[in-house]
Amino acid sequence: MAALQFQLQHTDPQSKARAGEITTDHGTIQTPIFMPVGTVGSVKSLTVEQLKSEVKAEIILGNTYHLYLRPGTEVLEAAGGLHKFNGWDRPILTDSGGYQVFSLAGNRKIKEEGVVFQSHIDGSKHLFTPESVMDIQRSIGADIVMAFDECPPYPSDYTYAKKSMELTHRWLERCIKHFHNTPDKYGYTQNLFPIVQGSTYKDLRTASSQFVANTNLTGCAIGGLSVGEPEEMMYEFTELCCDELPIQKPRYLMGVGTPWNILECIALGVDMFDCVMPTRNGRNAMLFTSKGVINIDNKKWEKDFSPLDDGIDCHISNYYSKAYLRHLIKAKEITGLTLASVHNLAFYLWLVKEARKHVLAGDFVSWKNELVPVLKTRL
Amino acid sequence: MAALQFQLQHTDPQSKARAGEITTDHGTIQTPIFMPVGTVGSVKSLTVEQLKSEVKAEIILGNTYHLYLRPGTEVLEAAGGLHKFNGWDRPILTDSGGYQVFSLAGNRKIKEEGVVFQSHIDGSKHLFTPESVMDIQRSIGADIVMAFDECPPYPSDYTYAKKSMELTHRWLERCIKHFHNTPDKYGYTQNLFPIVQGSTYKDLRTASSQFVANTNLTGCAIGGLSVGEPEEMMYEFTELCCDELPIQKPRYLMGVGTPWNILECIALGVDMFDCVMPTRNGRNAMLFTSKGVINIDNKKWEKDFSPLDDGIDCHISNYYSKAYLRHLIKAKEITGLTLASVHNLAFYLWLVKEARKHVLAGDFVSWKNELVPVLKTRL
Repeated sequence: MAALQFQLQHTDPQSKARAGEITTDHGTIQTPIFMPVGTVGSVKSLTVEQLKSEVKAEIILGNTYHLYLRPGTEVLEAAGGLHKFNGWDRPILTDSGGYQVFSLAGNRKIKEEGVVFQSHIDGSKHLFTPESVMDIQRSIGADIVMAFDECPPYPSDYTYAKKSMELTHRWLERCIKHFHNTPDKYGYTQNLFPIVQGSTYKDLRTASSQFVANTNLTGCAIGGLSVGEPEEMMYEFTELCCDELPIQKPRYLMGVGTPWNILECIALGVDMFDCVMPTRNGRNAMLFTSKGVINIDNKKWEKDFSPLDDGIDCHISNYYSKAYLRHLIKAKEITGLTLASVHNLAFYLWLVKEARKHVLAGDFVSWKNELVPVLKTRL
Repeated sequence: MAALQFQLQHTDPQSKARAGEITTDHGTIQTPIFMPVGTVGSVKSLTVEQLKSEVKAEIILGNTYHLYLRPGTEVLEAAGGLHKFNGWDRPILTDSGGYQVFSLAGNRKIKEEGVVFQSHIDGSKHLFTPESVMDIQRSIGADIVMAFDECPPYPSDYTYAKKSMELTHRWLERCIKHFHNTPDKYGYTQNLFPIVQGSTYKDLRTASSQFVANTNLTGCAIGGLSVGEPEEMMYEFTELCCDELPIQKPRYLMGVGTPWNILECIALGVDMFDCVMPTRNGRNAMLFTSKGVINIDNKKWEKDFSPLDDGIDCHISNYYSKAYLRHLIKAKEITGLTLASVHNLAFYLWLVKEARKHVLAGDFVSWKNELVPVLKTRL
């Protein structure tokens, strides 16, 4: 049982792309990696078997806000943690709940102590503090636990962004202190990642990155991007942060993004990604494939009996036809949601694994530059 | 490529239970068998992989009414039939659409020619005749095709029941004639099953069974039961029909039923069953298990981390806990619908396979009598 380790295996000479390996007590993760989002304890519409055999996921996310409300820490502790509860025995990362408090909950009030908010389910009142959020993530039993932060909206004025960043830094210090004062709950090592904020101001992002870089933690995250700012700005600030963060620690860009976003951000030095896009867009008939983007609702697929995607290594993507999935989605059959979600996630995992291969092979940039326009094509 | 064959392997000396084997061009089926219902081309919330590896299904159903409306025969023909379309390469049986026309469609009008009805989806007007229903099922490409019948409601008065049965018989003759005048569409043999009607009148059921017995077809079905009549009456008429039907042909009791219904009807000589109960009730939090019935919504399962059912041979039933499934169902997670449906179907398949073993072993009745009260227990 040991703290998370990151082995940087290769850095691309023509970009800042990296290939590495993260080791946790629940197994290793090859980076760059995409983490499917298991919001309320399941990756929506998938079983653990599908995550392993079809998607080939190496680590999944859990949402602290959702799991705290349902099933609650009492049930999760009685189960022996989320791994035991949901049957996923590989690494789990939990976010801090901060993002959901700001995007989902009602009547929130930010104070120095923490955030008071109302549950989006029943309106009940709750308080999240840096300390309570560490306790909750200890109870969930994630391998990687995120610091409690405030994620300011885009755009935010400079004064607010600076105040918010400073609060996030003070909260981070409290998170670190409380995390170190509390034991691992289930016999394996949990790891805390700090989060860079600072909105879209260079001096703030630089300061926040340096603040985060100076913590003695096993990885770093970049938050507050992909919240509505232009894509180019997101890339600019991702690069700025990566350049300040320690080389020897994995870098997690939170909530990003489209397939091309992921490739571009790998080129800027990001190692870990998560996003609800593959599952949420899948449920809404949008497929990402190795040949481009498909709106499977479209009449043009009605009699197209070719596989969803024969360019990736996933049985479901290779086996079922576009015409069949279109039919299931049109008929509102639940199986359609599953097939679309499995395919999109398998595609995302294929993408980061291919990226890793090309980083290791030394032709990442030319591969990426050729692939991005293909992936963006509307089929 | 050959017509359906039925090999009767064993008849229980203490009851009328039978063990047999049905051979079709898409493979063999061990009887007694339960057939999961794949309404609109998918068994709701399941993939073909789950049907094979978890449920261990040998044959599934398709609904002619639903498939005719969506995706329509043009798409199904272009695909090369339903097997090619949905990826299920084992036997498929399609109902005639009659039942859905009477239970789902609007503004239906029964005439000698057939039934005019309105689609429940868009209100469009359609006509089903014995001939058109044979054509549609030819296009779907089912291995077993059902005759077009009228399913009278319970209770029906004698005059109506008799008139309806006579219409069903005339329609059956037209089905047989048209079926024999049309070729198999996809290179394998399709088989037509006639349906016994006659409501809850002994003389009508006897007459209808004899009418059906005298057709030169490869199997027989019993329709119009489990439509609201008392359970004992359903058993009485099932037995009456089975006693009249030919010994050397498989008998399919349509739309039945609970686990104990299935065991009792196996004892009366039924070989094939279908029902939406395992999937529909599963989606509504009701689990059938080898230890009794579970309402997984119930608070009592909140911290019960025992498997859904460790008494049956299904990985999902053995792997996931009651507490986890309860959480998923409470949180309205799609994965919960899948786990409940997979489990219930796996349980139904386990049940008929166990029944078969006990018929072959010669202790079917004592096994059934011991098991039925267990299965009915509310846990």
